[in-house]
Amino acid sequence: MTMLKSPLQEARQAYQPKMPVALTGNVQLVEGQATESVADQEQIKALFPNTYGMPVITLEPGASAGNQQTADTFNVGVILSGGQAPGGHNVICGLFDGLQRINPNNKLYGFKGGPSGLIEHDYVELTAKVIDEYRNTGGFDIIGSGRTKLEETWQFDKGIEICQKLGIKAIVIIGGDDSNTNACVLAEYYLQKQCGIQVIGCPKTIDGDLKNEFIETSFGFDTACKTYSELIGNIQRDANSACKYWHFIRLMGRSASHIALECALQSQPNVCLISEEVEAKNMTLNDVVNQIAAVIVARANAGLNFGTVLIPEGLIEFIPAMRVLIQELNDLLANNEEFTALEGDDAKREYVKNMLTPASCELYRSLPKGIARQLTLDRDPHGNVMVSQIETEKLLIEMVSKRLAQLKAAGEYKGKFSSINHFFGYEGRCAIPSNFDADYCYSLGMTATQLIAAGKTGYMAVVRNLAQPHTEWIAGGCPITMMMNMEHRNGKMKPVIQKALVRLDGAPFLFLEQHRAEWADANTSYIYPGPIQYYGPTEVCDQPTKTLKLEHPM
Amino acid sequence: MTMLKSPLQEARQAYQPKMPVALTGNVQLVEGQATESVADQEQIKALFPNTYGMPVITLEPGASAGNQQTADTFNVGVILSGGQAPGGHNVICGLFDGLQRINPNNKLYGFKGGPSGLIEHDYVELTAKVIDEYRNTGGFDIIGSGRTKLEETWQFDKGIEICQKLGIKAIVIIGGDDSNTNACVLAEYYLQKQCGIQVIGCPKTIDGDLKNEFIETSFGFDTACKTYSELIGNIQRDANSACKYWHFIRLMGRSASHIALECALQSQPNVCLISEEVEAKNMTLNDVVNQIAAVIVARANAGLNFGTVLIPEGLIEFIPAMRVLIQELNDLLANNEEFTALEGDDAKREYVKNMLTPASCELYRSLPKGIARQLTLDRDPHGNVMVSQIETEKLLIEMVSKRLAQLKAAGEYKGKFSSINHFFGYEGRCAIPSNFDADYCYSLGMTATQLIAAGKTGYMAVVRNLAQPHTEWIAGGCPITMMMNMEHRNGKMKPVIQKALVRLDGAPFLFLEQHRAEWADANTSYIYPGPIQYYGPTEVCDQPTKTLKLEHPM
Repeated sequence: MTMLKSPLQEARQAYQPKMPVALTGNVQLVEGQATESVADQEQIKALFPNTYGMPVITLEPGASAGNQQTADTFNVGVILSGGQAPGGHNVICGLFDGLQRINPNNKLYGFKGGPSGLIEHDYVELTAKVIDEYRNTGGFDIIGSGRTKLEETWQFDKGIEICQKLGIKAIVIIGGDDSNTNACVLAEYYLQKQCGIQVIGCPKTIDGDLKNEFIETSFGFDTACKTYSELIGNIQRDANSACKYWHFIRLMGRSASHIALECALQSQPNVCLISEEVEAKNMTLNDVVNQIAAVIVARANAGLNFGTVLIPEGLIEFIPAMRVLIQELNDLLANNEEFTALEGDDAKREYVKNMLTPASCELYRSLPKGIARQLTLDRDPHGNVMVSQIETEKLLIEMVSKRLAQLKAAGEYKGKFSSINHFFGYEGRCAIPSNFDADYCYSLGMTATQLIAAGKTGYMAVVRNLAQPHTEWIAGGCPITMMMNMEHRNGKMKPVIQKALVRLDGAPFLFLEQHRAEWADANTSYIYPGPIQYYGPTEVCDQPTKTLKLEHPM
Repeated sequence: MTMLKSPLQEARQAYQPKMPVALTGNVQLVEGQATESVADQEQIKALFPNTYGMPVITLEPGASAGNQQTADTFNVGVILSGGQAPGGHNVICGLFDGLQRINPNNKLYGFKGGPSGLIEHDYVELTAKVIDEYRNTGGFDIIGSGRTKLEETWQFDKGIEICQKLGIKAIVIIGGDDSNTNACVLAEYYLQKQCGIQVIGCPKTIDGDLKNEFIETSFGFDTACKTYSELIGNIQRDANSACKYWHFIRLMGRSASHIALECALQSQPNVCLISEEVEAKNMTLNDVVNQIAAVIVARANAGLNFGTVLIPEGLIEFIPAMRVLIQELNDLLANNEEFTALEGDDAKREYVKNMLTPASCELYRSLPKGIARQLTLDRDPHGNVMVSQIETEKLLIEMVSKRLAQLKAAGEYKGKFSSINHFFGYEGRCAIPSNFDADYCYSLGMTATQLIAAGKTGYMAVVRNLAQPHTEWIAGGCPITMMMNMEHRNGKMKPVIQKALVRLDGAPFLFLEQHRAEWADANTSYIYPGPIQYYGPTEVCDQPTKTLKLEHPM
C-alpha cells in the first residue's frame, strides 16, 4: 500500500538540505591537539585507555581526492536511541548519502526499535527506496527507537556477532547524553577486543541538555521549541483577545529548563519559571506560588485579568523541599506491603502523614488532594513517584487560586482568576524538522560517514558555528571522553557526559532576567511566532533558536 | 512602546489577500428572486416583516463606476462577537479598505469587548495606522470580543444613540449563528424605528456549524482545523515511532463534530468519534467504549499497541442516556440547598444516587469517580453541569482501560495499553490565519462594505464557490431571515439560524465511513499535515479544507 501524504509531506521530499562547505566536495580531516575530559581526568583515562585523549577533528575542503574516494566497500549500522527528536531521519539520510558518495556499494543497516535491535539482531537494510520516503520527515518510524541501555558486555558481544555477519564497519548511535556515554563505552570495548568495529555518536534530544563547548545544540531542540512556541503564541493571542483566562502551560524537557527558556525568549510570556533558578535561590513551593500570584495581582490592578505562565516539566524536583518529600516517599513506599495492604485513599494518606519527617509532612499536608494522591498512589513498577506524570500546572493553579482567595479576603486583590492548563510535549517531538534541523541533521550524518571512513571511533559527529549561515558551519568530530566526568548514579560512581542545565550566568537566562518584569506587567509584550515555515524569506525560514544566537553572538 | 514581532508576523503584514474578481474593480449588485426562510415561513415572516423575503444578492464586475464611487461620506461600526476565530482581523481590514475605496473620508469605528461596546458606547476609531498593525494576524485583540447578547430593545436604543453621535450608517456584526440571528433582529428593529441604521452579519466560528446553502463555511474553521491537524499528525508520528501509546485527543467544536471530522480527513487517525452518529445510532457510553476497545484489540493482535482516537468536545451530550442523566442532575441540583448543605463528596454522591431514576443511577454508578465528581460538584453559577469542562478523553481512557482489563482476563486481549490524553482548542482559535482564511475574511469585509454602500440591511456577507481558486469565488449577500427557523430555547419558541450538525449523508462523513476500517487496522494510514504554510507551492499553501472540497466537488 502506498503511503498517502499531505501536500507538505510531498513538497518536503524534494528539499535538499544545506551543508557546511567542507561536506560539499572532497574532504580532509584535520586533527587538533590531544584532549582531556572536562573533569576527573585520571578516572576517565583509566576507564577509557583506548579512547581517551584523542584529538578534536575538523573537516576541511580537500584539495584533491581524499580518503573517501579510495575506500573499500564498507557497511554501517545505525541505531535511534531514546525519545524522538525532529531530524533523526535526516541524520540517517545524510549517513546514507555520505556512504553512497564514498562508494555506491556501501550499505546502511538500521537496527530496529533502538539498541535492542543490535542485541536481538533485528535489522533492516536501508535502501535508496526506503531512504527517499523519509527525507526531511519527522519521527523515528523509519526503524523505531527504544530505551534499552547498552551497558553490559554480553550485549556488546551480541553486537559483534551481527556486525561481523553483515560486514558492518561502524555503528552510529543517535541519542542523548546517556546513549552517547554508552556509545563511548562500546567503542572502548570494541577497541579492547580489537574487533575492528567503530562507534560514532550523534547528539540528539529536544531537551537541549546535551550541550557543551563542542556541541552547540542537540538536534530537535530547534523544531520542538518552535512548535511549542507556535502554540504558546496562539494561546497568548487568545488570552489577549478574550481577556479572561490565565493559561498555565507545562513544557516537556525533563530536568533542564532549556525548552521553557527558549519558548519564553520566542514568545515573551508573563511568567516563565526556570527550575535551575528555583533551586539556586532555594525557593519553596510557596515562594513559587507567591511569585506567580504577585504577577497576577499586579496585572489585575492594571485591569488585565489574563496571562501566560510557562512551567518546565522538571520544576517539582528542583524545589529542594519537594525533592526531600519525594525522596522520603520513595524510601517509605517502595515495596512497602503494609502500605499496599491499606484500604482506601484516606487510610493511605494518614499512613503516609504519620511516617514523614515533620517538614515533609507539613508540605504534604499543604498540597492539593489530587497532587498528594499522585505522589502517594501513582507509582512506577519500582515503587517510585512518577515525577514527570505530576501535573505541576494543575498543582500551581490550585495553589495560586487559594493564595489569590486569601489576598482577596485581605483586600489586596480585586481581580478575577480563571485558568486553563496545557501540557505540550508529544506535539513537538515528531514535528517535521525545521530547515535548521533538517540541514543540521543531514550534515551530522554526512560528517559521521567521514569519521567512519577515516577509521575514527569513540567520537561524536559535531557541527559548530551554527548561529551563522550554513556556509560558515564547521563539521568535525569530538572525542566523547572529553565531555565526561564522574557522577553518582544508582549508588555508584559512573563516567557520564555532563548534563547541561540552564546556566544562570548564561546569556539566554540573563536576557530573560533582564526583560521579565516588563513582560509581566505590560498590557502585552507577547510575540506570536506562528508555525514553522519551510519556504519564503530566509529570516522567516532559516533562523536558529534564540538560545543559540544569544550563546554565540556574531 | 512598539510591539516586538516575530519574523513571520513581520512578513505577513505585507501579504495582500486574494479576492473574487468582482471585488477588484467597480462593482454592481445583482438581485435574485425573493427568498423564503428554510422553515416556519409564516412565523418568521410575522417576526421580521421588514427583512423577510429579500432577494439574494450577487456582486458582479461593474461596467462603469457603480454606486460606490458616488456615495456620500459614511461611517461604519464593527463588533466582534463570541469566541475567537482566525481571520476576524482581516474582515475588519477588508471593511476598512472597502470603505476607503468608496470614499477616503469614511471612518470605521470598532466597538470594544463585543456587543457590550455598542451598548456601553465603548469604541475606538480604527485608523489606517491601527489597521496596518493587524493585517493577516490572528486573534480578536484589535477591539476584543465578548458574549453579551443583543436581544433587548433598550440595548438596541443605546446603539442608536452612539451611531447617531458618530454618524454610523451601518453596524457589522462578526459572529456565529446566534450573533447573526441577533444581527437580524437588530436590523428589523432599526427598520421599524426608521432610524436609518443598517446591520450586516459575517459568518464566524471555528466550529463550522454555521453552514448552509449559501454559507459554504464559516471563517476560522480552515485555520483552526489545520492547526489541530498539524498537532494530531505530529502526535501520530510520535505514536508510530514510540509504538507504545494510545493518544486520546479531544477537540473543541461545541455540539457539532465538524472539527473532529475535518481533522480526521486530514490526518487519518485510527478512531474518530462523530457525536451525530453516536446519537443517530442511539449508542450508549458502553457502546462507544466497546467500539474503541475493539480497535485497540485488533491492533494489538497485529502487534500494534499504539494509536490515536479523536473525540469531539460535544460527544457526551449526544449519548442519549448521558443527556438524560445530565438533565436529571441539572433539574435535581440547581438551587438545591439541601444538597449544597451536605458535607463531603461521599455524602453528595449518595444523595444524588438516591434521587436519580434507576437507569440514570446505573449509568452514574458506572462512571469513573473523577467524572462523577465533575458531574455532581463542578457546576456553573446556574447550577448546571459544565459539559464542555468534562474531560471526555479521560473518561474514555478510564473506561476503555477497564474494558481491556476484562478482555485480558477473558483471554481476548493480549496487548499493552498505555495512554496519553490531549485537548486542543485554545491552540488554534487565534492562529495566524491561513491564506484561505486571510483571503476569505478580507473578501467578506470588502463585500460587507458593498452591501452597506447599497443600503442593504439584514443581510449576511457571503462568499461562495470557495472550493475553487479565488478567481472563481462569488461574493454577495444573503438575507439572514432565509436561514432561520423556529426552535425551542429556554422554554420559548424563538427564531434562530439553524445550527449545522454533521450530516450523516454528507460527503465528508461518508468518506470517513468508507475509510475508517482501513485507518483503524493498517500498520499506519496516518497523514502528517505539518504546520500551515504561507509561502511556497500553491498546493501546499492555498488548499481549502477537505470538508469544503468534498461538499463542493469540481
